[in-house]
Amino acid sequence: MVYRLTVAYRGTAYAGWQRQPNAVTVQQRLEEALGNLLQEPVRVTGAGRTDAGVHARAQVAHFELDRIFPTSGLVHGGNAHLPDDIRIIGACRVAPGFHAQRSARSKGYRYRLIRTEVLSPLDALFAVRAPRDIDMDLIRSASARLVGEHDFSAFALAGGAHRQPVRRVFTAEWTERGRLAEFFIVGNGFLRGMVRSLVGTLLEVGRGRMREDAFAALLEGAERSAAGPTAPPQGLVLEWVDYGPDWGPGEDLYGTLGGPGEAGSPAPL
Amino acid sequence: MVYRLTVAYRGTAYAGWQRQPNAVTVQQRLEEALGNLLQEPVRVTGAGRTDAGVHARAQVAHFELDRIFPTSGLVHGGNAHLPDDIRIIGACRVAPGFHAQRSARSKGYRYRLIRTEVLSPLDALFAVRAPRDIDMDLIRSASARLVGEHDFSAFALAGGAHRQPVRRVFTAEWTERGRLAEFFIVGNGFLRGMVRSLVGTLLEVGRGRMREDAFAALLEGAERSAAGPTAPPQGLVLEWVDYGPDWGPGEDLYGTLGGPGEAGSPAPL
Repeated sequence: MVYRLTVAYRGTAYAGWQRQPNAVTVQQRLEEALGNLLQEPVRVTGAGRTDAGVHARAQVAHFELDRIFPTSGLVHGGNAHLPDDIRIIGACRVAPGFHAQRSARSKGYRYRLIRTEVLSPLDALFAVRAPRDIDMDLIRSASARLVGEHDFSAFALAGGAHRQPVRRVFTAEWTERGRLAEFFIVGNGFLRGMVRSLVGTLLEVGRGRMREDAFAALLEGAERSAAGPTAPPQGLVLEWVDYGPDWGPGEDLYGTLGGPGEAGSPAPL
Repeated sequence: MVYRLTVAYRGTAYAGWQRQPNAVTVQQRLEEALGNLLQEPVRVTGAGRTDAGVHARAQVAHFELDRIFPTSGLVHGGNAHLPDDIRIIGACRVAPGFHAQRSARSKGYRYRLIRTEVLSPLDALFAVRAPRDIDMDLIRSASARLVGEHDFSAFALAGGAHRQPVRRVFTAEWTERGRLAEFFIVGNGFLRGMVRSLVGTLLEVGRGRMREDAFAALLEGAERSAAGPTAPPQGLVLEWVDYGPDWGPGEDLYGTLGGPGEAGSPAPL
C-alpha cells in the first residue's frame, strides 16, 4: 500500500526537509513519528527538499506500508508523535506507482517581503524586510520574463548541481497589499535555492542595480556568480504540490490544500 | 521630556507586558534595552497590560527623560538591545501630560480563529483552532449586543478585580475569509482577560450551548462563573491604541500603525 501525506511545517528550527547526519530535519521527525505510531521503520519520500528555514503549507510525501492503516489515524496518531511545528494535515491511500516527487506536475511557492524600516515581530517569522523604495514596477516587469522554459543554472545554489537545469515556469506574479509584497511562482520543478535566488536578484532589479535585459539574459544558462544574492529562507513557503487529475487532490483534513485550488488563500495575521 | 514609543511583540515567550518578580516580561525587556541605550534607569508605562502569550502589533508606552535624544536613535538603538520578538517600531517626543494609559481613548484588539480539524503550524502561533461547524451567524448576532456601555464583570479574569467594571464597546465585528474567522473589538478600555473571555463565551454561543439572550444578560454585571471559558492567548493581538487628535498619531517607522487607520491592514501569511 502507498500512503500519501500532506504535511505543514514551520521550517524555522529545521535544517530543511531532507534527512542529514548531524542536524534535525523535517523528514527525520516525520519518519520518527510514523515509526512510533506504526511500530516499524518508515521511510518517507517528499515532493521537494525544502532548504533550512523554509516553510511548507502543504508539502506532500509518500511511504509504503504492507498493511491497511486508517488514514485519520495517520493524521491524528502521527501528530501526537510530532513536535508542534510539524503537522500532518491530510492522509490518503493512493494507487501503486504514486511517487511524491516523480508524479508531481507542478509546485507553488510564495515569498513574502515587507517594505518597512523595522520589521514587526508579528511578521518576522514568515517574511523578510525590504527597502521601502524598491520599484515594484521594475520587479514585476522582470518577473514576467520568467514564464516559459529556461536554463536556471544561474539561480541554483552550490551543492544543488543539476544535470538538467532547465525548468518550466507557469506563473510568476507579485501581489501587493499595503507594505506587503508577495511573489507567487509556479513551475514544473525548482533547482536548489532557485526561488530565493530569483527573489534576491529581482530585488537588485527593484533597487535599480540590474536592468531587466541583464536579468533576462541570466535565464539562458549563465553562471551562478552572475545572479544576485540569495534571499533569506524565512520568507519562503512551499504552498502546494499538484499531481493532476490522475492522482486526485488527496484527502486533506485542513481543507483542500492538496492542490493549487487553495493557493491564494491567506491565513492572515 | 516625555517620549512615546510604539512597540510590537510576539507574546509567545513572555509572561505578559507588566514587570513581575519571577518571570520575563515585555516591559522588563524594554526597560533593560532603553537602560542600556541611555545609560540610566528607565521606567516605561504601557497603554495596557497584555496577558501572558498575548501579542501586540502596536502597543504604546511612554517614559520620561531629562534630555533630548534623537527618536530614530531610540528606535534603532533600542532595537539593537532588544530580543528579536520585541521591536520598537516608532518613537516621538510628546507634550508634557501625555500618559500612555490615561490619555488613551480607545484600543483595538483582534482575535483569530481557524475552523479546521488540524491547525497548521503556519497559523498556530497567532491563531486558535475552532470546530468547523460553529454557527457564525449566532456568534455574529450575539456579538452585536456588545456595542454600547456594559458592566463586564462576568468577563474579567480573577486577579483583575476592577472597582469600575463598566466599559464602552464601539465596534465588535467578525470577518471571515475561508476558514479564518477574526473578531475585531474596539473599546474605551478592557478588563483583564476580557477579550479572551468574550471569545470563549461567544464560542459557546456558536456551538449552540448558550442562547443570545443569556449572553446579553451577562453584559449587565453577572458573576464570572456565568460566562464561558477563556480562549487561549495566542489568538489575541493588541492592534492599536488611539489617543485622538490632541496627541497626534505618533511617529511610526513601520507605517502609520499608531492609530486605528491601519487597523484592518493584514500582514498575511
